[in-house]
Amino acid sequence: MKKKYEFVKNAAGRLVPTEVNGKAQIPFLGVHGHRPTGQKTAPPISSCSDYPMDGNKVIDSIAEALKLAGLKDGMTISSHHHFRDGDLVMNQVFDAAAELNIKGLTWFPSAAFPCHGPLVKYLDNGVIHHIEGSLNGPLGKYVSEGKMDGLAVLRSHGGRWQAIQDGEVHIDIAVIAAPTADMMGNATGDRGPSACGLLGFGLADSLYADKVIIVTDNLVPFPCIPWQIQGQNVDYVVVLDKVGDPEKIVSGTTQLTKSPDRLHIAELTAKFVRAAGIMQNGFSFQAGAGGTSLAFAIYLKEMMKEADVKARFVRGGSTKYLVEMLEDGLTDFILDGQTFDLEGVRSMRENPGHINTSPFTSYNWHGKGNFASMLDVAVLGATEVDVNFNANVVTHSDGQMLHGIGGWQNCLFSKCTILPIPAFRGRIPVIVDAVTTLVGPGELIDVVITERGIAINPLRQDLIQATLDSGLPIRPIEEIKDEIDDLLGGIPQKPKLTDEPIGVVKWVDGTLLDTIYKLKQ
Amino acid sequence: MKKKYEFVKNAAGRLVPTEVNGKAQIPFLGVHGHRPTGQKTAPPISSCSDYPMDGNKVIDSIAEALKLAGLKDGMTISSHHHFRDGDLVMNQVFDAAAELNIKGLTWFPSAAFPCHGPLVKYLDNGVIHHIEGSLNGPLGKYVSEGKMDGLAVLRSHGGRWQAIQDGEVHIDIAVIAAPTADMMGNATGDRGPSACGLLGFGLADSLYADKVIIVTDNLVPFPCIPWQIQGQNVDYVVVLDKVGDPEKIVSGTTQLTKSPDRLHIAELTAKFVRAAGIMQNGFSFQAGAGGTSLAFAIYLKEMMKEADVKARFVRGGSTKYLVEMLEDGLTDFILDGQTFDLEGVRSMRENPGHINTSPFTSYNWHGKGNFASMLDVAVLGATEVDVNFNANVVTHSDGQMLHGIGGWQNCLFSKCTILPIPAFRGRIPVIVDAVTTLVGPGELIDVVITERGIAINPLRQDLIQATLDSGLPIRPIEEIKDEIDDLLGGIPQKPKLTDEPIGVVKWVDGTLLDTIYKLKQ
Repeated sequence: MKKKYEFVKNAAGRLVPTEVNGKAQIPFLGVHGHRPTGQKTAPPISSCSDYPMDGNKVIDSIAEALKLAGLKDGMTISSHHHFRDGDLVMNQVFDAAAELNIKGLTWFPSAAFPCHGPLVKYLDNGVIHHIEGSLNGPLGKYVSEGKMDGLAVLRSHGGRWQAIQDGEVHIDIAVIAAPTADMMGNATGDRGPSACGLLGFGLADSLYADKVIIVTDNLVPFPCIPWQIQGQNVDYVVVLDKVGDPEKIVSGTTQLTKSPDRLHIAELTAKFVRAAGIMQNGFSFQAGAGGTSLAFAIYLKEMMKEADVKARFVRGGSTKYLVEMLEDGLTDFILDGQTFDLEGVRSMRENPGHINTSPFTSYNWHGKGNFASMLDVAVLGATEVDVNFNANVVTHSDGQMLHGIGGWQNCLFSKCTILPIPAFRGRIPVIVDAVTTLVGPGELIDVVITERGIAINPLRQDLIQATLDSGLPIRPIEEIKDEIDDLLGGIPQKPKLTDEPIGVVKWVDGTLLDTIYKLKQ
Repeated sequence: MKKKYEFVKNAAGRLVPTEVNGKAQIPFLGVHGHRPTGQKTAPPISSCSDYPMDGNKVIDSIAEALKLAGLKDGMTISSHHHFRDGDLVMNQVFDAAAELNIKGLTWFPSAAFPCHGPLVKYLDNGVIHHIEGSLNGPLGKYVSEGKMDGLAVLRSHGGRWQAIQDGEVHIDIAVIAAPTADMMGNATGDRGPSACGLLGFGLADSLYADKVIIVTDNLVPFPCIPWQIQGQNVDYVVVLDKVGDPEKIVSGTTQLTKSPDRLHIAELTAKFVRAAGIMQNGFSFQAGAGGTSLAFAIYLKEMMKEADVKARFVRGGSTKYLVEMLEDGLTDFILDGQTFDLEGVRSMRENPGHINTSPFTSYNWHGKGNFASMLDVAVLGATEVDVNFNANVVTHSDGQMLHGIGGWQNCLFSKCTILPIPAFRGRIPVIVDAVTTLVGPGELIDVVITERGIAINPLRQDLIQATLDSGLPIRPIEEIKDEIDDLLGGIPQKPKLTDEPIGVVKWVDGTLLDTIYKLKQ
């Protein structure tokens, strides 16, 4: 029998449950409405007397490390997703837990991927009670179908740090897969056969978990430098033959879009950034690793060269395109949150201007500031935008939960947030009356750029004024929407949803922004 | 009227007070006798909503920053000592506090220097209630004379981290002087007119203090890279014309000893390390920046070249001698805790093998291990050693409190701890029946090397066996002592001490190892 939820309407007018997975929730109170109280959480005080004096923490197997770490029913095990779909560690962790007859675990990954499909059996048989984290592939489908006990909790990268730091999620055991490590547990992602660039998504886990296990396939003599993860936070080190599938961890090369429409949108975006006066010496930008974002970065690069403009920093997800900008002297720094291709990994390893960042430095809302709000412009994707500039990245217009939030919510705080998106996808309009799921409040989204025109949020009169004589196709968002609706033959049907929640969307401050519902069959 | 203390005898047989500066104390329970309980401390949860979205935290003056940080009577203000005797910041901080009519502050520096002499007036008039930290110069004299309210609390570098981390000392406001910083508070020590190398002694302060103020004279555009201190932990940034006197921060060159006796001791030490089989490929050592230690490093370097031996890492206090070893390929890494000369600063800035460490990575006893116990050999100084190998670094044989502990206690955990010391100083013997103040338990001190012979701790039969046929002048410690006593004309008078405590010596785990008493006038 399914749990009954009580709902409350939040400041965005969305109904959200009062309790999620046994924990009371605060509804979204507005972008700046919530103020946290109390102290950050902290792990138990350790003593060197309980650790090997020679620094050697190597343990024979994952199962042995889990036992030594005190694995018990109902505990929370965390992991990072820097290995993406190439992770070979976490299925083994839960296999070991199952062999140890453990039940009711919470898995708290920064994201799960299709490679974690085999874990469905542990959701079925109760080894894993529920998963909190971005879900793709078979696990996403399982949750979408309402089969998981408890609710999926979707958090941004910054929101995951906030949840750990604030004690909303207590990690009993963190398992940190590491491309290179030493016997003491110092670890790095920028080298080794499973190199993934950096380990920032596992940093909070290493700082706040009760017990920390490093799993590596490349043990080097102490000290492992750089030590992106510090051995002084690590309890055990396990060495496996292979921790990841390199081809699925980073791609050899990142793929640019070839779609003429998307190239057009990307070019419009770069032109808008220039026209709005943002592209100035010392400016900064962030663009993702999607095809359109990559194309935007390439157009912008050419305009920067032409105008002899140099950026102070660019934010990655790094790719060979950003690396080229760094190496060509078009930016002083790449502040990198995850590397997407081999060139990104190489550059991070070799170039002192290619900086390893973490969700703490970049995104955590419950810190003393973060970079995201210092960016001059952020170029992001969306599955839907409504006429009030509210946006969605986790469900499609058909209601299916398909994506995690990533750093998307965090990046909305940039000085100019632009969503370059196609006006429709497969005859489904992307600009809608109301988003299926609210992930980004409209007040933070400044510009929507489609192949049919550029819509500027009326809140940003400064941008409207700056681009008045630019010759760019700037139009009201309603006008673009009407044109698309006409083209597609009327307003499409809303997705048919049940009133049964399958997940929730957290805002960057830990409050509940929206609910994701099960689709009607 | 002076406070009366109750005393208890600890596991080392020393009398220690049950309470220090209003806080109950745990007596020393043996080197591995104490196990901490509970969680680490943590600062309040912040919200980006309360910090400038553009990252600009620059405030006009120290006084303004202190006011904004909520400075109140009785608070604790901390600072680091990377500027050593060249610090121009902390006197200004307490001048500002005095002008704001604040009373009863605790100053919690990692060390105080003669340049802080002007603070005596604030101890006199109650702006500062007491100081916890290593004391030199006029402040040391003031405390030695029993004039300070409360007790001096001497901690090792690791012990200071432990005290902060465990919540034994709560820092209300940390003032972190930084040679280079950006408007957000990211800061580094390796560049700028007041460059001091690194800021590791201020790292705990930045992580655990309620409020953090960066004071710099070299503001650079965001991002300040490297960010040894992260702006996400910083509340305010103050820019002054000059934060330090470069000549007193680092020396142009470090001074080798010219004394034939000390050179002889240094050479004996290097020969012992070789004879004991420690000097092998991949080994590690730590030697301080004192004249004898420097000479030891030079002798060892020549022996390493001769034997074609390469170290994996050496620990600094870095000097040009260690830098030469790194640049000559005689070690893979320098793991550096503080830079002592300009070459150390340059190397840290330029050489990816010259690594910025902190007391957390190096020394904190309440972590999951630290480097100190992984060192193959540590070469340290001492003011006194007794026939049971107990050692003292904080008082001289005349009972005067003259030195801080620094990393000395932490380094005792190396696999072989050697004290190369002259057998007497100014007709006062250094080897005694019982040390005036116990700072290092004899079980951790393996070898004492004097110009009159080498004494190996009987606990280290392995070292005794390894050097049996070395031809080195290995003798029982009692024999060396008797020879010196004869030479100096009998056993010297013990210092005349009152029963009035002026300070305490903490062990690395926060327990009380010994008491320092006021001298009889």
